[in-house]
Amino acid sequence: MNAGALDVVGIGNALVDVLSHGTDGLLAELDLVKGSMNLIEADRVEYLYERMGAGIEVSGGSAANTMAGVASFGGMSQYLGKVRDDQLGAVFAHDMVATGVRYETPKASTGPSTGCCLVLVSPDAQRTMSTYLGASSLFGPEDVDADAVASGTVLYLEGYLFDRPEAQEAFRKAARVAHDAGRIVSVTLSDSFCVQRHHDAFLDLVDHHVDLLFANEAEITALYGSDFDAAVDAVRRSGTVAALTRSEKGSVVVTGDALVEVPAHPVADVVDTTGAGDLYAAGFLYGFSRQMDLATCGALGSLAAAEVISHMGPRPEASLQELAGQILAD
Amino acid sequence: MNAGALDVVGIGNALVDVLSHGTDGLLAELDLVKGSMNLIEADRVEYLYERMGAGIEVSGGSAANTMAGVASFGGMSQYLGKVRDDQLGAVFAHDMVATGVRYETPKASTGPSTGCCLVLVSPDAQRTMSTYLGASSLFGPEDVDADAVASGTVLYLEGYLFDRPEAQEAFRKAARVAHDAGRIVSVTLSDSFCVQRHHDAFLDLVDHHVDLLFANEAEITALYGSDFDAAVDAVRRSGTVAALTRSEKGSVVVTGDALVEVPAHPVADVVDTTGAGDLYAAGFLYGFSRQMDLATCGALGSLAAAEVISHMGPRPEASLQELAGQILAD
Repeated sequence: MNAGALDVVGIGNALVDVLSHGTDGLLAELDLVKGSMNLIEADRVEYLYERMGAGIEVSGGSAANTMAGVASFGGMSQYLGKVRDDQLGAVFAHDMVATGVRYETPKASTGPSTGCCLVLVSPDAQRTMSTYLGASSLFGPEDVDADAVASGTVLYLEGYLFDRPEAQEAFRKAARVAHDAGRIVSVTLSDSFCVQRHHDAFLDLVDHHVDLLFANEAEITALYGSDFDAAVDAVRRSGTVAALTRSEKGSVVVTGDALVEVPAHPVADVVDTTGAGDLYAAGFLYGFSRQMDLATCGALGSLAAAEVISHMGPRPEASLQELAGQILAD
Repeated sequence: MNAGALDVVGIGNALVDVLSHGTDGLLAELDLVKGSMNLIEADRVEYLYERMGAGIEVSGGSAANTMAGVASFGGMSQYLGKVRDDQLGAVFAHDMVATGVRYETPKASTGPSTGCCLVLVSPDAQRTMSTYLGASSLFGPEDVDADAVASGTVLYLEGYLFDRPEAQEAFRKAARVAHDAGRIVSVTLSDSFCVQRHHDAFLDLVDHHVDLLFANEAEITALYGSDFDAAVDAVRRSGTVAALTRSEKGSVVVTGDALVEVPAHPVADVVDTTGAGDLYAAGFLYGFSRQMDLATCGALGSLAAAEVISHMGPRPEASLQELAGQILAD
């Protein structure tokens, strides 16, 4: 691995989250499948928002949350993703920079408003997401800052990008630039429905174009159409390093010749699981980019995930660098 | 007292809060007096926002928080205050209606953006506020919905309105309409600096135009230029009922012939004092509009304040009606 000036460069859909509590009854009434991510259009946003309770607005976006997490560990990260020059776009950009993430993607000055994700948090802390891509859907290959990508030890890409051909193209361009510069390319599968929508493309990606894969149990089993153990065997044969998360069962990190089981970090009170996967990736990527061993990478992931699910919102409230003090000292 | 179709009608500056954590060092660096509310212009917003950490956006505004609290108790409330037809204005309006507050003030379609309040929350849970009035400053006498005001058992007005002549005029119009309809007029002094800015007008108001006064220790002593005990004597002589809050010492409710001491409600962990006074007023007003005795009004105030300071943000997260179950059953 070839260390760059930045630890991690992430690309994804730039979104502001609107978080609200919602019962199972409300989910049913709104035709939402608990735990899923649905892409929606502007009129559906209006429909759902009118029926949601009072909310809190916080910057979100899967890879953006991950980059915020890397920065919270003290890592150098940059984020590429598009917002509009509107109020929520200003909030998104402010929060990235205030968190210590480099963020320079030009804002759109016309077209749809900044993307948003309506998040209903259930009493059992599960989150159900309805995403309006808005301006984030304008991100294309021309927004891939080749200098930035080439200077990151690890490139990190959202599977969600596969939902749009232009973003897929940006994805492929970024992966090419990273590999040409001798960098690591990592991908998260993002969502099991997203895997089903783009099944063959993802399989090809994992087999031929990706060095490091993040997935949860639902996503990896959807990818291989098998149970978890068979999926682990399949991903090991692919030669890709994979960090597979299993909620309270922790995670399993697999390579061609190793299998490392990582316990979950204890959490007194799980409040909102939004961002759990994003923050696991943040911890893992921070460790990986600094060449720590896989068990430590996983432990940092577990730690970051535990922090983010202990409160509302998809980004850390506490300094992950401070929380990780003991692990990093060992 | 003359019961209307609504329990409480509130008028104030409609704002979206941007909450962020800030150390005493940051406050000093930004020239902010801890615990105060400062009115700022657009360029100062930009300056401060750039220097603040990542934030969460939530609907705020003093009287708006109070009306949300009244609704959370199961009361019927209406709010009058102005936002623009922009993204944060939509958030504000959504949250009012979603909370169960009637809110019909027309949005401004030109002029400054929706007002905001930058709130720095210190490690000791104190909040320091910098307010950009924005579109809320366009609220004038023509926005006073006379039918709404006339139908509320109690009218509730923010002292902050005294910072603008147009809003003062709206304030006076609303008080006139309420009194003509046989309603109670209540006012909160809002902020000790606000009291100092409009000292003589507030004294005249309390002596001649207001039936029910809310103030904290700093505000009531600023009004009478005396210590707390002398201020209590002075307000009793004015004939106005006063609910005087004293943080962890609870509150004192005084009338011409009674003085009721109300203990604070216990709080395990004070996280953010934003909204404490607003929610005390909510509980008190709910009880008062339903003709409960003063001790119960105060107890409901203490309960609501305790709820809101136990988490980030200026509005209740739990149902105050449920929390108050025991008090209301007694």
